[in-house]
Amino acid sequence: MIDIAIIGSGVAGCEAAINCKIRNKNILLIGNDDLSEKLIKAPNIKNYLGFPDISGVELRNNIKNHLKQMEIPIKNTIVKSVYAMGDYFTIQTKEEMIDARAVIIATGLSNITTIKGEEEFLGRGVGYCATCDAPLYKNKDVVVIGDNEEAIHEARYISEIAKNTYFVTKNQVSIPNVKIINDTPIEIKGLTKANTLIMKNSTITADGFFILRNSYKIDNLVPGLEIENNHIVVDKNMQTNLEGLFACGDITGAPYQYMKACGEGLIAGLKASEYVSKI
Amino acid sequence: MIDIAIIGSGVAGCEAAINCKIRNKNILLIGNDDLSEKLIKAPNIKNYLGFPDISGVELRNNIKNHLKQMEIPIKNTIVKSVYAMGDYFTIQTKEEMIDARAVIIATGLSNITTIKGEEEFLGRGVGYCATCDAPLYKNKDVVVIGDNEEAIHEARYISEIAKNTYFVTKNQVSIPNVKIINDTPIEIKGLTKANTLIMKNSTITADGFFILRNSYKIDNLVPGLEIENNHIVVDKNMQTNLEGLFACGDITGAPYQYMKACGEGLIAGLKASEYVSKI
Repeated sequence: MIDIAIIGSGVAGCEAAINCKIRNKNILLIGNDDLSEKLIKAPNIKNYLGFPDISGVELRNNIKNHLKQMEIPIKNTIVKSVYAMGDYFTIQTKEEMIDARAVIIATGLSNITTIKGEEEFLGRGVGYCATCDAPLYKNKDVVVIGDNEEAIHEARYISEIAKNTYFVTKNQVSIPNVKIINDTPIEIKGLTKANTLIMKNSTITADGFFILRNSYKIDNLVPGLEIENNHIVVDKNMQTNLEGLFACGDITGAPYQYMKACGEGLIAGLKASEYVSKI
Repeated sequence: MIDIAIIGSGVAGCEAAINCKIRNKNILLIGNDDLSEKLIKAPNIKNYLGFPDISGVELRNNIKNHLKQMEIPIKNTIVKSVYAMGDYFTIQTKEEMIDARAVIIATGLSNITTIKGEEEFLGRGVGYCATCDAPLYKNKDVVVIGDNEEAIHEARYISEIAKNTYFVTKNQVSIPNVKIINDTPIEIKGLTKANTLIMKNSTITADGFFILRNSYKIDNLVPGLEIENNHIVVDKNMQTNLEGLFACGDITGAPYQYMKACGEGLIAGLKASEYVSKI
């Protein structure tokens, strides 16, 4: 089992990972090779102490080098869910389940617009992982919604199981046995379970609806996690309401600044390491 | 009146100052040209994100350059006291009184060993600023205790006013009309007021006792400030129990790490700027 999984490769996640590694913990840093979309788009940063006017790209390259020197690889994947299992956590990525004694959430904030009805029917006909729930939809009608590579894979996979597969996407693609619908989702409706997707120009009925995005609203990522105004509630040790689960960076609240994220990343890394050493 | 006074030129104080300056505040950074004794003694720092193995001296030089580029000078002095005056603060340095709308305390932690009885008699015959209280000791007997340059100045100054001036110091100095005592202070005694200094090899009676150090215990710096286990209590905005008074860095508690201090410095700088903009 991994000691500490860090979800997010922005500055908070990287600083957390470095501090866990210094404490000799067995870690897994989940994110992407660009580290942070926000960072690489940043022009000159004025307040990264000691490095006036450093550009976002330069800082990103320096951080990549820092991770490399400390032998911290980045696992490129998307986390669907994190489940508190008592004295450990199970992380569901798009490919597998990973167990870790402690988890640090450093996903940053993303502007996610959910589809009307999506959250209401989540778990009742609406899901984020077709591969996971596929057995439930054998010989049924399934809608996959999404614009990324993963959505294409999911549509292809589900089409081998479902009776009818519909793929609502902006992309021009062609998948055998999948009906491509280039329309914009507006609302998911249903009674006890979701059964209808209303789009701008058409409407479709089905048994299951899978929505694929590059990131998910934090409310839906970790069941039971205390959230306030879209931010994870933490104490001064960056500990959340779930023991062993820490958070740092923009996801804990303003100011949305690199140095604040670094400071919190350091604390989360050290406190998660202390937590793991104790148990 | 100054908008924001920042006391302490370690990483927390410097990062706070930079952020106040970015917000166009009229600031005063009080500290010393070396920035931080702790920093320049640091060998390689492992977790300053993006700069693996940077040495303390290199980071210090970079920070000096950062301050210079942003036109933030450092005022070299020692702060004796900070008084909350309602909607502003008065800072007593060894030379003058300075008013500021908001104050950020970033003094770090110092290992200060007080003399037995010192705190008990503070304000009742014991003080930290002979120059300030000198008129009270006209034609009286005064003891100055200290090993730094300032102590020599204070002894010289007080000798022009007092009847007898005693200077308890480790240094070999000679000052006209001052009796030099090379002994080690152990305890200050008295009844309602301090009247006796007991040293290792001798004892002396006097009306006033002035103790000069390079830094003072935070308990004695700001009357009314909430302290817990030698640390200033702050909320997540780095606000102390005194409105308009902020703190950041090691003085707020562990982990005693540069990135934690930077993160808090950023928050204190931005929150103090917001506070000043509101009033």
